[in-house]
Amino acid sequence: MLGKYKAFWLDEDDNLVVLDQRVLPFEETTVTLTNADETIEAIIDMTVRGAGVIGNVAAFGVYLASRESIGDFLKFQKLAEEIRASRPTAVNLMWAVDRMVAITENRIDKNMVELLKNEAIKIADEDCERTEKIAKYGADIIENIMQNRHLKKFNILTHCNAGWLAIVDSGTALAPIYEAKKRGIDIHVWVDETRPRNQGANLTAWELSKAGIEHTVIADNTGGHLMQHNMVEMVITGADRVTKSGDTANKIGTYLKALASYDNDIPFYVALPSSTFDFTISDGIYQIPIEIRSPDEVKYIRGIDANGEPQKLQIVQDNSPAINYGFDVTPARLITALITERGVCSATTNGISRMFEDLI
Amino acid sequence: MLGKYKAFWLDEDDNLVVLDQRVLPFEETTVTLTNADETIEAIIDMTVRGAGVIGNVAAFGVYLASRESIGDFLKFQKLAEEIRASRPTAVNLMWAVDRMVAITENRIDKNMVELLKNEAIKIADEDCERTEKIAKYGADIIENIMQNRHLKKFNILTHCNAGWLAIVDSGTALAPIYEAKKRGIDIHVWVDETRPRNQGANLTAWELSKAGIEHTVIADNTGGHLMQHNMVEMVITGADRVTKSGDTANKIGTYLKALASYDNDIPFYVALPSSTFDFTISDGIYQIPIEIRSPDEVKYIRGIDANGEPQKLQIVQDNSPAINYGFDVTPARLITALITERGVCSATTNGISRMFEDLI
Repeated sequence: MLGKYKAFWLDEDDNLVVLDQRVLPFEETTVTLTNADETIEAIIDMTVRGAGVIGNVAAFGVYLASRESIGDFLKFQKLAEEIRASRPTAVNLMWAVDRMVAITENRIDKNMVELLKNEAIKIADEDCERTEKIAKYGADIIENIMQNRHLKKFNILTHCNAGWLAIVDSGTALAPIYEAKKRGIDIHVWVDETRPRNQGANLTAWELSKAGIEHTVIADNTGGHLMQHNMVEMVITGADRVTKSGDTANKIGTYLKALASYDNDIPFYVALPSSTFDFTISDGIYQIPIEIRSPDEVKYIRGIDANGEPQKLQIVQDNSPAINYGFDVTPARLITALITERGVCSATTNGISRMFEDLI
Repeated sequence: MLGKYKAFWLDEDDNLVVLDQRVLPFEETTVTLTNADETIEAIIDMTVRGAGVIGNVAAFGVYLASRESIGDFLKFQKLAEEIRASRPTAVNLMWAVDRMVAITENRIDKNMVELLKNEAIKIADEDCERTEKIAKYGADIIENIMQNRHLKKFNILTHCNAGWLAIVDSGTALAPIYEAKKRGIDIHVWVDETRPRNQGANLTAWELSKAGIEHTVIADNTGGHLMQHNMVEMVITGADRVTKSGDTANKIGTYLKALASYDNDIPFYVALPSSTFDFTISDGIYQIPIEIRSPDEVKYIRGIDANGEPQKLQIVQDNSPAINYGFDVTPARLITALITERGVCSATTNGISRMFEDLI
């Protein structure tokens, strides 16, 4: 599968190579993960991130764990559990680890190692198929809005990164944008910088520029003003966990954009594969655990200096503490609809249960 | 008046010394303004900023303009007009310049130069008195909320900087916080970083730490999550221009926080001196001009390196454009009330006209 996916792939020794997303866009380097601990570290320090890719890397991490646990199922189980707990909010992670562990039948031998490798590949392949369908359904929505409103150009706002760096192989929120571009639609993307880790400025802008898609980076504070002045036709984001009632955990700040969309009658869509649903819970605000990350992500920032050299700066004074919530929850009532691989459904218990009856 | 104000003062030669707000909190330095051009530059490049202080510095700028225009009223008029046009959104600037020019009776002589100096001092002194009253009315609101809700601690969220760096001599939004602290209230301030220029992280956090007030810096994306989880009792911001109907232009992103406040039943207050009203307009969204500043403010960031040396980094790649709207407008319907030097009034045409009948 060398080179099949863009954000990660297996090398000749079946180690997992991942694009180092911490240093994009100014450096394009990779990190090679050879065991469970390295996988956990890469997930925690956000060498890899994005709900889907975390799930994929976790699945391969379980495979790597099996390689170092032949004949020792308890060790394997412990490592898999540690991978599963590496980040708390994105549910694809738990989903992928559970699916991997479920096939082991409580034994790890050479044959099972091979089966686990294939299962991880299968999960990634299935994610690919899902994003292709999300791309199509999302682009159909864009075309419909353009036709109904007689638009020649389409301005779409997105928060954080839900492109192919986040979900193989064209993303969720960005998949319809890539597809719209393929269909010849004149599309322009407002890219929320996405503080504190700047996944919008660092990753989404990089992805879009690689694909030749017109875009503009904005401070996260800007979306409301743009919406008030009819400069946004649609908002689309990914998701880290969606409850059975449609409440959506996504990168911190998504809720604020959803409020502004609602206040200005602008459609707000969430794009997700079915693996992002958590059918066990309903109330997102009280039931989805929100990760608190290091305050240093607020207090320090990475970039390049005048010589193009990567540097880190402190941007908050020592004697001011900071706090860093990674996600927030957008109540279902603010979401126009969910774009999934099975089609578009309302962000309601009824809409979701009708479309995903077999999974609940 | 040497040292009377904290953000600016006249030196022995009656030049205007201003704290350089571009380099806080990591450097505390001043810039001396000796003429109109230097004043304009200091306003444009945000050496000084904040609606009130811009007005004060502009007033002193008109005084400096008079010094270089003795016997040449046309020159004076042209310089005053240039000062007036240096930034488009904050109305105190226009208000202060107009008030200064109005006393000249179309002549500039040595006597008038002295009169203008005194008028600029008078404007600043009046602003001081206003902020003292705003402090009192605002702190009363805080006390009332605490009593009604039986709170022992008060969490208040603010956006940008509306402290003494922005409005002599204790600010608008921060004035009630300073007063609450004086009254012995256990207050904690959530400080929005305020991208792209980080006035929250750089200025508000610095002011609060100097005053020993507990605070936490957060990414601008965070407020909604905090409000959903009952971690904010009140939101307070300053204003750059308020229409006669209560629509409020303030730092970009204020609107998003007002939406989140409204959605979570959290009181959202705007603190302003009457000089921030623009009674000539009603619809803030369409009638208040919003400044578009350099995209470099989004693409570059300032901080200190590991050696404590001030540095600037590029944080958006070259081939991604950015746009930088300085302000947005919060519709009056989202504002609980306005805190002014005359008292607290509803953000409605009726509420405002009853309290400021004589000024309209």
